[in-house]
Parts: sequence; C-alpha cells; structure tokens
Amino acid sequence: MKFNLLGTDPNSEARAGEFITAHGKVETPIFMPVGTAATVKAVNQQQLKDDTKAEIILGNTYHLNLRPGTNIIKDAGGLHKFMNWDYPILTDSGGYQVFSLADIRKITEEGVAFQSHIDGSKRFLSPESSVDIQRILGSDIIMAFDECTPYPCSEDDAATSLKLTHKWLKRSVDHFNGTESHYGFDQTIFPIVQGSVYNKLRVESAQFVSSLNCHGNAIGGLSVGEPHDLMYEVTETVCAHLPAKKPRYLMGVGTPENILECISLGIDMFDCVMPTRNARNGMLFTWDGIINIRNNKWRNDHSVIDEKGTSFVDTNYSKAYLRHLMVSNEMLGAQLATLHNLSFYLDLTKQARAKILEGTFNEWKNMVTPQISSKI
Amino acid sequence: MKFNLLGTDPNSEARAGEFITAHGKVETPIFMPVGTAATVKAVNQQQLKDDTKAEIILGNTYHLNLRPGTNIIKDAGGLHKFMNWDYPILTDSGGYQVFSLADIRKITEEGVAFQSHIDGSKRFLSPESSVDIQRILGSDIIMAFDECTPYPCSEDDAATSLKLTHKWLKRSVDHFNGTESHYGFDQTIFPIVQGSVYNKLRVESAQFVSSLNCHGNAIGGLSVGEPHDLMYEVTETVCAHLPAKKPRYLMGVGTPENILECISLGIDMFDCVMPTRNARNGMLFTWDGIINIRNNKWRNDHSVIDEKGTSFVDTNYSKAYLRHLMVSNEMLGAQLATLHNLSFYLDLTKQARAKILEGTFNEWKNMVTPQISSKI
Repeated sequence: MKFNLLGTDPNSEARAGEFITAHGKVETPIFMPVGTAATVKAVNQQQLKDDTKAEIILGNTYHLNLRPGTNIIKDAGGLHKFMNWDYPILTDSGGYQVFSLADIRKITEEGVAFQSHIDGSKRFLSPESSVDIQRILGSDIIMAFDECTPYPCSEDDAATSLKLTHKWLKRSVDHFNGTESHYGFDQTIFPIVQGSVYNKLRVESAQFVSSLNCHGNAIGGLSVGEPHDLMYEVTETVCAHLPAKKPRYLMGVGTPENILECISLGIDMFDCVMPTRNARNGMLFTWDGIINIRNNKWRNDHSVIDEKGTSFVDTNYSKAYLRHLMVSNEMLGAQLATLHNLSFYLDLTKQARAKILEGTFNEWKNMVTPQISSKI
Repeated sequence: MKFNLLGTDPNSEARAGEFITAHGKVETPIFMPVGTAATVKAVNQQQLKDDTKAEIILGNTYHLNLRPGTNIIKDAGGLHKFMNWDYPILTDSGGYQVFSLADIRKITEEGVAFQSHIDGSKRFLSPESSVDIQRILGSDIIMAFDECTPYPCSEDDAATSLKLTHKWLKRSVDHFNGTESHYGFDQTIFPIVQGSVYNKLRVESAQFVSSLNCHGNAIGGLSVGEPHDLMYEVTETVCAHLPAKKPRYLMGVGTPENILECISLGIDMFDCVMPTRNARNGMLFTWDGIINIRNNKWRNDHSVIDEKGTSFVDTNYSKAYLRHLMVSNEMLGAQLATLHNLSFYLDLTKQARAKILEGTFNEWKNMVTPQISSKI
C-alpha cells in the first residue's frame, strides 16, 4: 500500500494525502462507514458508493467470523465479493468486540477464549487466528490484534496490558508476513498504539509501533469514555511519535467536532458507528448543527432536510416527512437518515481535505466547529 | 381520467390498456405497491420509480388520517409532495382498515365511530369525510367508502351490508362531485362492488356500481380468506357486469398466480401487501418459483438472487449474502428483498401486458403458472 502526502496545513498538523489499495484509491483525511456484519446498516452498496461517496468501509472480524463464518466468505471469494463491494475494506482484529460483546472465558498470552454472544459457542482468538481470518476476509487493510484497555484504567494495568499488546502486535505482523493473500491481491497490516491515557506509555507504544515499520499505523483505546480533552492530548502526543509519511488511523472516533479536531492533530483515517447508529434514532448531523428529527418542532416543517447536504435525500425530502417516518417506526426513516448522516460525514472529511490543500484548514475548522456541534 | 383499451386476449378476458392521470400514465394490467403510511416500506421513492418500475402506488386513508394527519399533509401541498412521489397515487377509503384494525364503537348509516389503534383517540369516518380526507391527500384515484364483509358471511348479512354499501357509495360519489380538488389537478373516484361470495348479490352490486358511471370500478371483499376458486368465480361474474371500457381494480389481490388468473378474467389493477410484507420475512417471488431465503439450503449458495430478475439487486447480490442479512436481522435484507419482490410483481404485470398485446396471454399464463407458484 502506498501513501502519498499531498499537503499540510500551515497552522495545524493536518495533512491531506491519498493511499492506493488493490481495490482503489482513498483520499485522506477520510471517514470510513462501519459495515459490521458485511453491511453498512440500512444502506445498499450502490447508495454507499454513489450517494454517500464512501471510499472505504470497515468490517468487523468478530462478527463476520461468527456469522456467516469464514468458510462461507471464503467460498464467496472474500468479503468484497460476498457483500458486493468492490472498493477498499479495512477490517478490525476482533479484539475490541471480544472484550466488549463476548463472555470472556480466559485471556492468556496465547490469546482470548470466549463464548459467542450469538449462540454461546466456544471460540478462541489470537494474533495469528485474527490475521488468518482477515486473510480469508480479504480486507485491503488488516488490523493487528491488540488488547483495548477500558476507561478509566490504572497506569499499572495499562502498562501490563501494553506489554501483552506489543507481543500480540509483533506476532500479528510476523504472521501476516508469513502468510499470503488467498485472492491474488495485496493486503497490508496496521499495528495499533495503546497505553490508555498515560503519555509515557503512549509514547513508548508509538515508538514500538513505528519500529514495526508497517504501511500505516493506528491509535486504539480512545473514545472509550474519556473526556475529549484527554483524547485530543493523547492523539497529539501519539501523532508526534508516529512516522509522518504513513497514514494514521484513529479508531472509533467520533463526533464531527472530534473528527475536525483530530484531523488538526494529524489523523488521516476515522471510523465510528455514530452517523449510522444515531441516524436510526433520528439524530441528524448537519453543517448548521445537530437535529433531533423526532422532535415535535419538525412535525409541520416542510423545508428540505438539509439544504447544504450533498445527498439526494437532503433536498428531495422534508423534515416533516422524515419525522413522520421516524415516529411511525417506518424503515425508510432509518434509511434516509443514514444516507444523510454518512453523506455529511464524508462531506466533512472531503471539505477538510480541500481546506488543507488550500492551506486554510485551521481557520475553517475554528469557524465551523461551534456551528456543527450546536443543537438546532 | 381517461382509459384506453389497447388490446384483448383472444383466449381469455384479459385486456391491455392505459389510463392517464394528472400525475402521468399507467399501463394496465398493473400492480400497485402498497405505501400505507406515505412510504412503501423499506424502499425510497427513487428506487420505487427507477428500480421497481412502479407506475402508481396505493396509500391508506385510515393510516394517513391518524398519522401524520390531514393538516400536515395539506400544509405540505398534498400526499405527492409530502412523500416526494410525483407519479399517480390511489388511496383507499379507510373503511377496510377501520373494520380490520380499529376498535369499532358504532356503525350507523351515517358512518363508523371508532378508536384509533395508535392512540385510542375517538374518530368518525363516513362517505363524506373519507372523500374529504382523500381530497386533502390529493390522490389521483379516490376510493368510495364501503363496508367490507368478512369471510364467511351469511347471505342475509351480506345483503344487509350491501344495502348500506350502496348508500355509502352513492353518497361518496355525490360528495366527490360536489367538492373540488385542493391542488388544481383532476382527481377521480372509483366505487366498489361488494356482495361477499353470493353471485346474485355481486351481479346486483356490479349493476349498481356501473350505474354510478365513474371512470373506473373496483371489486372489494375478496382475498379475505375465501378459497381461490371462489375468488375467481366471483371475479369472473363481476367482470361480466362491469363496463368493458373502464378499468377494473381488484382490491387486495394477491399471489402472482392470483394476479395472472384474475388478469385472464378481465382485471386491470391490483394491489397487495404480499410482495412487501413477505419480502421482510424472506419470501422471494421469482419466475422459477418461491424461495424462502432464510432456509439453510441457501447459506453457501453464491449464485445471484435471481438471474431472470429485472432489479439490480437480482444480479448483483448472492443468495448466501441475502440469507446472511436476513438471519442476522440486518435491515438491508428487507430492503433488497423488497426491491426484488416489487420488481418481480411489476415485471409480472408488464410481461402479462406484452403477451396480451401479442395475443398469446392465455397460453403463456397456463405455461408459467405452475412454475411461479412452485416452491424452490
């Protein structure tokens, strides 16, 4: 995978770039919609590409391994073919979901024994098996297997966990290097910086991760409940210790405000369930602020959903109609709201990129941030 | 509304035609997707037009009157504008839902007092108020208010109900003629033949309905649990007593087999929740038969959903993928299955029309019927 750094913002650490995968180019900074179970919820693949302008999506190894299972995805010829998405895919390692969803039986240095949250079946995930699964999924970007610390977490616990994570990252990368793609196209692997909110541990981890010399690097263990200022502080610290010429992926972040702020700190890639999950509850992100479309105030408002929006839903449907769908529990409500939110998130990173290339990102970010984080 | 009869099948009563509304032309025979609450469930309006090739949809007066309510739809400029559908709409009278969904308080000659199934509020629906509501909805085709008899129903009860229905139909048509469109475009009204499964009553009703001299006529009270043979017998009887030069709409029918059979008896218009509702449960209608996509047999079948299908979903997604979405309760499953089923239903009536115009409909119908009604 090749990353080209195309421009930097003079008044922040923001960068514009692009990376090339076997399934096409991705322009950074980029937001990656989450497609947990081989589907970005409520959106079909044609809409995902043509309407929301998604360039790369994320799949969840934990979920896909349980259902439909690797044998079926392998028979389909990989996740791209299985889900009819011919553009880049990044998959996580499954570790985060094992710790958040499954009933954990035992963590050892070897890996994690757990029970499926779907059928209770006994499973085991290790750095090696996670890479094996992601090889079968055929993701363009494989994530190394790590342990994600909760928040809060004592410094001692974070340090102990980090030791294990570093061993697991090394084994992930070694196993990746010792195996090959099943489908004849290149895959790559990103290791993950951990260390909770402790700068000393984060610096140590960033240096270790850098030493693995992969084509991109990720920051995990943030957006797990810590205050935003702490998230920004850790992100800034870590970015300063990760190589500038490789993409930096901040996992699981976040609100539109978080994304702009973290772009200014040097992050290139983001994923979050927020635009999709909150859409299903009626929360719309717009350039003018955040709308709860279920609110009674919209019931007879026949103005378009978002006149600044880039999706066809924004200018073809009214707020009153979308509210009606939501309060009537009509599926189309979740569908339209999801298209809107994903389009907004993709427009957000696209506009950020344009401003970086113009050299005006930081001023622009400071100008739009109060607006996009306000409640309408 | 103008109906042009363009061709008849030499070996059946099947007819091909077209009618022109203020929102465009409809080619018959036609299937009308059901959009109960201002949405065809799980399908957006762009997909409805471009993917499924719907030409006209049905809205439910009962539901729309309760939610969002006529004041909101009036402020939107009518149902077409409210729901962003600029093509023909037919609305039912609300009577059927009052009898099937609401807690009925009292039926008098004046109308029906009932409680909303949504919030328990007290409501009243009469021939006049039903027409008033449909005037506000701005439907291209308004349905007259009738009483729909259940099955089974004694001949005495059916006769008593029919007397009331005929009074209500007359009042509906009179009220329609005494009122005007709110939005400056033409609307029309169809009366409805009732009479349960009693040929004598059905003939009497067809003659009465014909005498009202509307631009189209409907047959109600079928597909309510009676055997298919009885449905066909009544349909045949009624069609023989309805004017040939006006479209005939058989309400609430049915399976693909029902539709082909009733086309052969002289029906031009159909609506049914079956393709949409059954899609959400994983039942797919195809030219090769009926598929329960949740069945385990499809779990590793990577062939396309339906190689004879006309929707993009049919040839872009696999059976294994659609099954995975369904068993994982992913919304996209219902979305894709709905697009498939509606496209199939619209293709069914479109192909029927072509065969009628070729003069080969009946032979074709007899050939494809065993196939489309088989289970794969």
